[in-house]
Amino acid sequence: MEIKAGDLDYNATYKILTGAIVPRPIAWVTTQSSAGVVNAAPFSAFTLVSPDPPLVLFLSSQRERRKDTERNVRETKEFVVNIGDQACLHDLHMTSAALGPEQSETDQYAIPLSPSLSVKPPRIAGAPVCFECRLVQLLEFGNDPHTMVIGQVEHFYLRDDLYTNGRIDQSKLQPIARIGGPTYAHLGEFIHLSPPAT
Amino acid sequence: MEIKAGDLDYNATYKILTGAIVPRPIAWVTTQSSAGVVNAAPFSAFTLVSPDPPLVLFLSSQRERRKDTERNVRETKEFVVNIGDQACLHDLHMTSAALGPEQSETDQYAIPLSPSLSVKPPRIAGAPVCFECRLVQLLEFGNDPHTMVIGQVEHFYLRDDLYTNGRIDQSKLQPIARIGGPTYAHLGEFIHLSPPAT
Repeated sequence: MEIKAGDLDYNATYKILTGAIVPRPIAWVTTQSSAGVVNAAPFSAFTLVSPDPPLVLFLSSQRERRKDTERNVRETKEFVVNIGDQACLHDLHMTSAALGPEQSETDQYAIPLSPSLSVKPPRIAGAPVCFECRLVQLLEFGNDPHTMVIGQVEHFYLRDDLYTNGRIDQSKLQPIARIGGPTYAHLGEFIHLSPPAT
Repeated sequence: MEIKAGDLDYNATYKILTGAIVPRPIAWVTTQSSAGVVNAAPFSAFTLVSPDPPLVLFLSSQRERRKDTERNVRETKEFVVNIGDQACLHDLHMTSAALGPEQSETDQYAIPLSPSLSVKPPRIAGAPVCFECRLVQLLEFGNDPHTMVIGQVEHFYLRDDLYTNGRIDQSKLQPIARIGGPTYAHLGEFIHLSPPAT
């Protein structure tokens, strides 16, 4: 089946992109407003940019009503990318609710926080990995405003048992993935291939 | 464990970013040089940008020696993002080899191709989903050059059985994910949660 992109409306296009670009890792982003309200929200258009310096990005859509994260990042230039595991999934999913700007998702859903070392927004205490980030760049894309937030990691938090011999142990990380809509996935079988001969 | 980002070298940083930002979807990108050589290479720093117009991005590192893709995209402004499934994994992994610019991975590994409709680079015949893309923007990040390639999807190819009622059926897509190094993963259990009450 061949579909011309221009023949699809916004929702149909969104469903193909999010249904085909899978599985997606999830940036569970904590920010703090200038008034001190802590916001948490998940973003699954998320990836690494470069290791030197360590840069990561996520995309925020106004349609998804996660406006508080973007506003706080613009105001304070700081955020934490928390990586949730299977144990975090329920809390993570709850924070996809659209609360008002004066309401804290972490208060509302009683999600424990821990102080960050180099930025003001706290990290999520139960998240096995956290990146404390300083805003580097904001870029706008598309007709419907989508904001790309690029941050530089200042500090890494790694749960002690995860990190051995300079590697994150995936069997201990128990990562979760975003598929489409309210569907998530665990990882299944791992496949270790030899580097291809050249 | 808290690690200051500045205390880690390139490889240690790379291992944390790729080990924590998981599972990553894979853009299996086909391009064609101006001399007509077809190149294929996988990129796992890959996500959607916006649905209107449909934009996707992937990041290319010169260290990863996938220079042919980037050069072809700069020259021809066209590429195809193929989404591989479990049946494609072996072929996909083989194309991560560093061949010379005059060598075609798809020839070398006998990977069948199909013509695209709106761009010159062919799509991979066995890939269940393909995005025919026109280059929109190239951005450089980091000290070690990492190029962000942003493309607009002109045409979608979807294997007929995958797409029902405007949705991609994940159980038929059988997606694969990149973890770190030469490790990939299948998806495991799916979790369907109710939208959070607000």
